[in-house]
Amino acid sequence: MIAEILMIGTELLLGHVVDTNSAYIGRKLAGIGINLYHKAAVGDNRLRATAALREALNRADLVIVTGGLGPTEDDITREVVSEVFGVRQIHSDEAMAHALSLLNRWGHQDRASLRRLAQVPDGATIIPNPRGTACGLIVEKMGKHVICLPGVPGEMEAMMDLSVIPYLTRLEGEGRTISSRTLRICGPGEAEIEDRIRHLLHGKSNPTIAPLVSLGEVMLRITAKASSPGEAGAMIDRVETELRECLGHDIYGTGDDEIQHSVVRLLKERNFTCAVAESVTGGLISHKLTEVPGCSRVLGLAVTSYSNNAKIKVLDVPCADVERYGVVSREVALRMARGILSLSGADVSISTTGVAGPARDEHMHSIGLVFIGLAWKHGITCGRFQFFGTRSEIKERAAKRSLDILRRHLLRHH
Amino acid sequence: MIAEILMIGTELLLGHVVDTNSAYIGRKLAGIGINLYHKAAVGDNRLRATAALREALNRADLVIVTGGLGPTEDDITREVVSEVFGVRQIHSDEAMAHALSLLNRWGHQDRASLRRLAQVPDGATIIPNPRGTACGLIVEKMGKHVICLPGVPGEMEAMMDLSVIPYLTRLEGEGRTISSRTLRICGPGEAEIEDRIRHLLHGKSNPTIAPLVSLGEVMLRITAKASSPGEAGAMIDRVETELRECLGHDIYGTGDDEIQHSVVRLLKERNFTCAVAESVTGGLISHKLTEVPGCSRVLGLAVTSYSNNAKIKVLDVPCADVERYGVVSREVALRMARGILSLSGADVSISTTGVAGPARDEHMHSIGLVFIGLAWKHGITCGRFQFFGTRSEIKERAAKRSLDILRRHLLRHH
Repeated sequence: MIAEILMIGTELLLGHVVDTNSAYIGRKLAGIGINLYHKAAVGDNRLRATAALREALNRADLVIVTGGLGPTEDDITREVVSEVFGVRQIHSDEAMAHALSLLNRWGHQDRASLRRLAQVPDGATIIPNPRGTACGLIVEKMGKHVICLPGVPGEMEAMMDLSVIPYLTRLEGEGRTISSRTLRICGPGEAEIEDRIRHLLHGKSNPTIAPLVSLGEVMLRITAKASSPGEAGAMIDRVETELRECLGHDIYGTGDDEIQHSVVRLLKERNFTCAVAESVTGGLISHKLTEVPGCSRVLGLAVTSYSNNAKIKVLDVPCADVERYGVVSREVALRMARGILSLSGADVSISTTGVAGPARDEHMHSIGLVFIGLAWKHGITCGRFQFFGTRSEIKERAAKRSLDILRRHLLRHH
Repeated sequence: MIAEILMIGTELLLGHVVDTNSAYIGRKLAGIGINLYHKAAVGDNRLRATAALREALNRADLVIVTGGLGPTEDDITREVVSEVFGVRQIHSDEAMAHALSLLNRWGHQDRASLRRLAQVPDGATIIPNPRGTACGLIVEKMGKHVICLPGVPGEMEAMMDLSVIPYLTRLEGEGRTISSRTLRICGPGEAEIEDRIRHLLHGKSNPTIAPLVSLGEVMLRITAKASSPGEAGAMIDRVETELRECLGHDIYGTGDDEIQHSVVRLLKERNFTCAVAESVTGGLISHKLTEVPGCSRVLGLAVTSYSNNAKIKVLDVPCADVERYGVVSREVALRMARGILSLSGADVSISTTGVAGPARDEHMHSIGLVFIGLAWKHGITCGRFQFFGTRSEIKERAAKRSLDILRRHLLRHH
């Protein structure tokens, strides 16, 4: 089965939004072995959208259309699909009941727009939208499928996972599968990792190993083609084992895991609590940890002590140390880690102090210089790092590295 | 002049990368009044790329092609353009010299790949690439233009700004400009805002006003077409004035401003400092504030008091209040705001307590229930909110709303 994506929305052409939907859909289709050969975007223009959908259906068996399902006159997808398939639009009680139930739950009063939401091409199957009022649609004629989904990423993603992928899997039957798995690494850079796994990277065509770099981490994507998900999974397992033999604890997680998920999991396993004292990272470590459900069991207290006064008064950093070494120093990082450990009563703590930029600090330290402290009941340590990038990027790299330092400590202590 | 974008790269279809290039190009073309009607992506496949380029040239006067300009066999753009225009490929001394000079500067030794980089369609104009070895190309025949740029965003963006936009501006002559400006609003929802500006929304075709909703805020984009940037700016100014008469202080900023930028600016203007006590937002308010350069002048201390113990010990919330009202309560929010104000010595403070989910708290409060406290030297207040969405979305909405509450307070007190 060959697929295309057609996105409808003038905002995509004007560049007001960056399209993340088609990458999401592309990954999901690849995951069940459906080939995506083409994707396109057109504005909210009936003529051009109709022409684009006709062309896509000439080339492909399946077209996933995103956007244009809202209640306004600009939302043209329902009309475009009806015209291309040559069917009239009918009123759908199911779509109407869905929109009404959501509006009731939200306590909204504005029902004027419902009539358009309930107009669907004759013969369409309704795809429930758990997060919004506009349902999705599946329309099929002579072996050609069009699946319409909203353009709002959260709604589209939920409907893709809950309805579209199961539907397409049934349609395809048991065929060929492409599966992939990502191993995630924080700490060593891409060049070092490639060096250590060079003998595994070369001469592998199935599964393949692809290194991908993102802010402050490296991912290795293993992709296998096989006749069943089980077979593909076993092939990936073997490569993962080889990679883990080379990289060991440098791999912190797999798939959508982020470094904070590994940290919270390890803390829970050990029945430990942690605390955080942030200066240069400005609350980002705390924000990352609290993105993880159940984090309240392991994080009691985090302090962003941005001013010298806060470091001295709340974290008990000696005024003399600040004066003697400056706030961006190993000594102050260590004092901050010790101070938050004692204030919170946690088992382990991390601290950051450094220069995020855009200007250098008054001691003319370089932008991106960061000290990361770590304290626990029986010891204390500190690392010195030079990160690169914008203010945001330096915060992000320093926060991830801090969490990775905490993770490696937890692996050694249990 | 009507334009299209054609992206070449299998990674775009597999969803391994999110395409930010086409949004960038779309904004730049809109800025010089060129209409973009269609964009498409195909894989590194010569047949499909050739077909897509032919179709694009049938519809449009200008096609900007990104990707496929590298040195490997997979990089097919030069061949595809030559084939579609019916010209042979020739060796370009200019392209070769450029690639050599960069490799020399970088100290690289691998020159084997240079030969492919210097093969260009006969008659092509070379676009210099200040950041990489692969030059861009302009090919023109019978009024149809194809401009080829690398897929690496940093290289593409530099070449777009330095060469392509000046070239297209000359080509178009002194023509029409499209300018736009965005006003940003936090607090009232989309429906309420549309109600208040309904008389301005209707019957306006130039400038247009388009409401856009994003997480926890609404944006109004004003877009004007005119014969010069100055004229477009004046047209936008008039509409902005009308909108501000209706919406007043609900508008917190324009353009790329985020709510934290407005807050930091107001704090600096008033020579005020602020402090933050977060529970449900988990450090996100502090993270947002510290994204703003110079924030250290106005933010001294932020505390994420996730545990009851931290609230009691660090923020001085009475244990009796926690027991009597529960941590998710107006009383605890107020105590947290007062506690951090006194601990930090700041002029104003905000606090959050609530339920981010995914599970309800032990008092069975609904997910998304949030209390936001505000304290200053002469008073204290608290708001109760019900937010919707995932854990991350609830944190994001609560953090933005807290910052907006602080902003509105600062507008009243100076």
